[in-house]
Amino acid sequence: KDIGRLTIQCADQPGIVAAVAGFLAEHGANIVELGQFSTDSENGEFFQRTVFHREGLAEALPGLTAAFADQVGERFGMTFALTDAATPKRVAIMVSKYDHCLLELLWRNRRNELDMNVTMVISNHPDLAADVASFGIDFVHIPISRATKVESEARALELLTGKVDLVVMARYMQILSADFLDNVGCPVINIHHSFLPAFAGAGPYLKAKERGVKLIGATAHYATATLDEGPIIEQDVVRVSHRDSVGELERRGAEVERSVLARAVQWHCEDRVMTYRNSTTIL
Amino acid sequence: KDIGRLTIQCADQPGIVAAVAGFLAEHGANIVELGQFSTDSENGEFFQRTVFHREGLAEALPGLTAAFADQVGERFGMTFALTDAATPKRVAIMVSKYDHCLLELLWRNRRNELDMNVTMVISNHPDLAADVASFGIDFVHIPISRATKVESEARALELLTGKVDLVVMARYMQILSADFLDNVGCPVINIHHSFLPAFAGAGPYLKAKERGVKLIGATAHYATATLDEGPIIEQDVVRVSHRDSVGELERRGAEVERSVLARAVQWHCEDRVMTYRNSTTIL
Amino acid sequence: KDIGRLTIQCADQPGIVAAVAGFLAEHGANIVELGQFSTDSENGEFFQRTVFHREGLAEALPGLTAAFADQVGERFGMTFALTDAATPKRVAIMVSKYDHCLLELLWRNRRNELDMNVTMVISNHPDLAADVASFGIDFVHIPISRATKVESEARALELLTGKVDLVVMARYMQILSADFLDNVGCPVINIHHSFLPAFAGAGPYLKAKERGVKLIGATAHYATATLDEGPIIEQDVVRVSHRDSVGELERRGAEVERSVLARAVQWHCEDRVMTYRNSTTIL
Amino acid sequence: KDIGRLTIQCADQPGIVAAVAGFLAEHGANIVELGQFSTDSENGEFFQRTVFHREGLAEALPGLTAAFADQVGERFGMTFALTDAATPKRVAIMVSKYDHCLLELLWRNRRNELDMNVTMVISNHPDLAADVASFGIDFVHIPISRATKVESEARALELLTGKVDLVVMARYMQILSADFLDNVGCPVINIHHSFLPAFAGAGPYLKAKERGVKLIGATAHYATATLDEGPIIEQDVVRVSHRDSVGELERRGAEVERSVLARAVQWHCEDRVMTYRNSTTIL
Repeated sequence: KDIGRLTIQCADQPGIVAAVAGFLAEHGANIVELGQFSTDSENGEFFQRTVFHREGLAEALPGLTAAFADQVGERFGMTFALTDAATPKRVAIMVSKYDHCLLELLWRNRRNELDMNVTMVISNHPDLAADVASFGIDFVHIPISRATKVESEARALELLTGKVDLVVMARYMQILSADFLDNVGCPVINIHHSFLPAFAGAGPYLKAKERGVKLIGATAHYATATLDEGPIIEQDVVRVSHRDSVGELERRGAEVERSVLARAVQWHCEDRVMTYRNSTTIL
Repeated sequence: KDIGRLTIQCADQPGIVAAVAGFLAEHGANIVELGQFSTDSENGEFFQRTVFHREGLAEALPGLTAAFADQVGERFGMTFALTDAATPKRVAIMVSKYDHCLLELLWRNRRNELDMNVTMVISNHPDLAADVASFGIDFVHIPISRATKVESEARALELLTGKVDLVVMARYMQILSADFLDNVGCPVINIHHSFLPAFAGAGPYLKAKERGVKLIGATAHYATATLDEGPIIEQDVVRVSHRDSVGELERRGAEVERSVLARAVQWHCEDRVMTYRNSTTIL
Repeated sequence: KDIGRLTIQCADQPGIVAAVAGFLAEHGANIVELGQFSTDSENGEFFQRTVFHREGLAEALPGLTAAFADQVGERFGMTFALTDAATPKRVAIMVSKYDHCLLELLWRNRRNELDMNVTMVISNHPDLAADVASFGIDFVHIPISRATKVESEARALELLTGKVDLVVMARYMQILSADFLDNVGCPVINIHHSFLPAFAGAGPYLKAKERGVKLIGATAHYATATLDEGPIIEQDVVRVSHRDSVGELERRGAEVERSVLARAVQWHCEDRVMTYRNSTTIL
Repeated sequence: KDIGRLTIQCADQPGIVAAVAGFLAEHGANIVELGQFSTDSENGEFFQRTVFHREGLAEALPGLTAAFADQVGERFGMTFALTDAATPKRVAIMVSKYDHCLLELLWRNRRNELDMNVTMVISNHPDLAADVASFGIDFVHIPISRATKVESEARALELLTGKVDLVVMARYMQILSADFLDNVGCPVINIHHSFLPAFAGAGPYLKAKERGVKLIGATAHYATATLDEGPIIEQDVVRVSHRDSVGELERRGAEVERSVLARAVQWHCEDRVMTYRNSTTIL
């Protein structure tokens, strides 16, 4: 319905807001929502997300993009993107056997709460095929073992590269190689459990139980070559007590994972998340 | 340190952001932070808060203000304010006998967490005089009774009107008259307990206990003639259980009151809160 | 697996805990978990929930129940229940058109997170039939109009009375008559939106938006003749802002409704919730 | 007012609750509140906290203690404590330069929200002497350097051992030696910042900022020889965003530290916290 989004990022410098606002005004776009942030008042990195209304946006988009690059983007050395809010992101979900994150995403999407179009679900196990089928979405089973990792990832890349705008690891229990991340051609969001403090290695819920932790959390972040250390998009916690068994801690953990991942995916699909170095700005 | 804030409000219309950003760029001001909001994409109310850096701000402020009114404000029918972040708001606190909200504000202010200068504390009881004195702040005792309400409020107005930028009712257990609110010449922030659902009338904590409520909350809002129904600035809750006595519910309520009020005052002092009809926009 | 639960309630008096613990020890039951609460140290109401292990519980249960009544229950004037944890509660869910609460319950139950056996879903609309069928659960469509209310309720009572242990109104948009509640023969849990303060009447989300509320909540409670004023089982809130439209407030509200209702149902099915007058004790 | 507390801990075995309840009933004590927990239904560790009313408790306490040891404690191999709720815990607070945790404790105590009697404040810096004096509490300045650590700790031990029931490290920026902890003769509670995930080493707030964390937390725990890895008593978090500078993260961290520490101290002073291996049970 003629609603566009412009996201920009560049070194902070005088006149950016004026130039962007001037450009939009000149091209018949009326600003509906504007978020802006600079990491520092000197030598900072500048971020802006602008939502605007423009008659006939769909047809005008290529021209607007070229004009913006020409008249504003190049001058300020910007990275920018102009998108049509009516075009949902194409998303692939990768999953193993746990269903809670996958179903939360599919279910919310069916209720039109997420701005995405799930084009396929890829799993290294066949277990969730029927669940996915009931949503009318393609389920692709790509088994993976140490021996087949290279070819399995290659097969996934074939399905993904250039065909999706986002990959979501909804408890996909495999580590994606740096090579995969380099070649998939779009961001990858991952979810994992989190504690204060962290409990490294295997059996984190047992370790948390043994320490008597009172909060169980989850973190959604962009996957990077060092898998669990990419920029954080969203986090949350739930309260637990000594009465909760290790199994119950895992159940509460699953609950917070699904809501945290859903929020992170939603923000990403609304073009709200911008990364800089290893952190995020959510506008 | 040459940091200014510009807050504006007007009917939404094309070109506002461009005009404001253009003005600031022309007058040597570099935007550091910008928050913007419109209540609707058609016929909405527009709000913007801009933080900027400008060499020699203190001296330039009167000239900038006049120029902005002339070149931008009038054109768009704006209500606006240009302030110097280095000038803390002058605040008067009104209190009765409960000390928790008062002490939280004074203590945080001593730790430089609130952007305010508390010029006086007015109370209808003498009880908290020593506490206030220990912070080096003037304590004014203005008793009030049904018979003396008019003159007591007149005396308070004499101390306040034109001399403070904000009045905070930190559990001031008197209802300020519509007349007082009309004449005090600055916003008044009030804090009161809140529940889901509300329990009207006397003894709300007892009523909450009798219903078995699981959350106790507080609401900070601007005082209006209908005292507890002004625009809401901030709210929060804490979890309680059947084990909590009515006295403990009140204590937990006091805890959430002090943090909610402190946040509301801080946001107000940072020029973040804008009101429209009976609601607030926090930028 | 031989795990039983004993819940008792009576006027507080010396010797209750000793008598109950003595009885269990004598009858070969080892206490695994014990929660106890008294509303007051004088003339209070006493509540206790004891989870115990007893070899051959299923066969022994009728005898244990009779013996407990005889040896302990009568002496202290107790209301009590002895249940086998291996026997899940039989639950009927009533729903209209909103699916979020229904699906949350069915989904969690499929993941074995709720101690219940959903025997049927009753709806006054046909919309959710397919969703319910996909879980292999009976869906009964009982239309209801002002004219047919009496017979519709009678038909529901026929299906429910004596056949279920709990009825859950998962956004069932009809008011159950006092007569229905009197005759259904088991507790009824209801969920509804909640705000600080409450906004009575139609369009509560719009009213909340107009007042600028910062928290949106939900309350799960037992239904009583005054529908929304029964004893509260659980409550929670989520944070919202001026950026959230009325539609988004409703979506956030739906999210908190489903988690609050799921917790309330879980606690009830684990025999944790005891009511006294208009409040609850959760052990 | 004749309210006593009995806390017990031992290997779980049949008949404990009956024996304890029987003992109290025989000795004229009426149970007011009872919390109980077992880590496992087989071979678990058992914990119980019983609050009871007994006429003439103060005089009877020594006799009751001896009788309980004789009649119940030895039989079950219990660790137990019988305390008079009217006798507040004697507490020493250790602090460096940060005042927020110290003032929160002193202030709440003045409002009678904590069941403790602060007998002294020990600091390695003189900065907070006046603040402490304003509460009428002894302030002891014991400087400490690498060279003087042994004698400084010895001097503190002289003031503490046998004279206090609890030591609270309210942001005491020194590591207490294993030797100190062995000889102080009472539990020591510590508070420190916490993140998901943890950021080890210096500058944790900067590291958290660089990773874009969305939650800032604090953990209160018992100090053990491995300082920050003792049993956790309480934890909490607050939400932060990319807009918060490192300084603001520290301020939000301080806020959560003071409320978490206050809750941990309160629970300890009410004899609610029991430790087993490296975890806690809060009854």
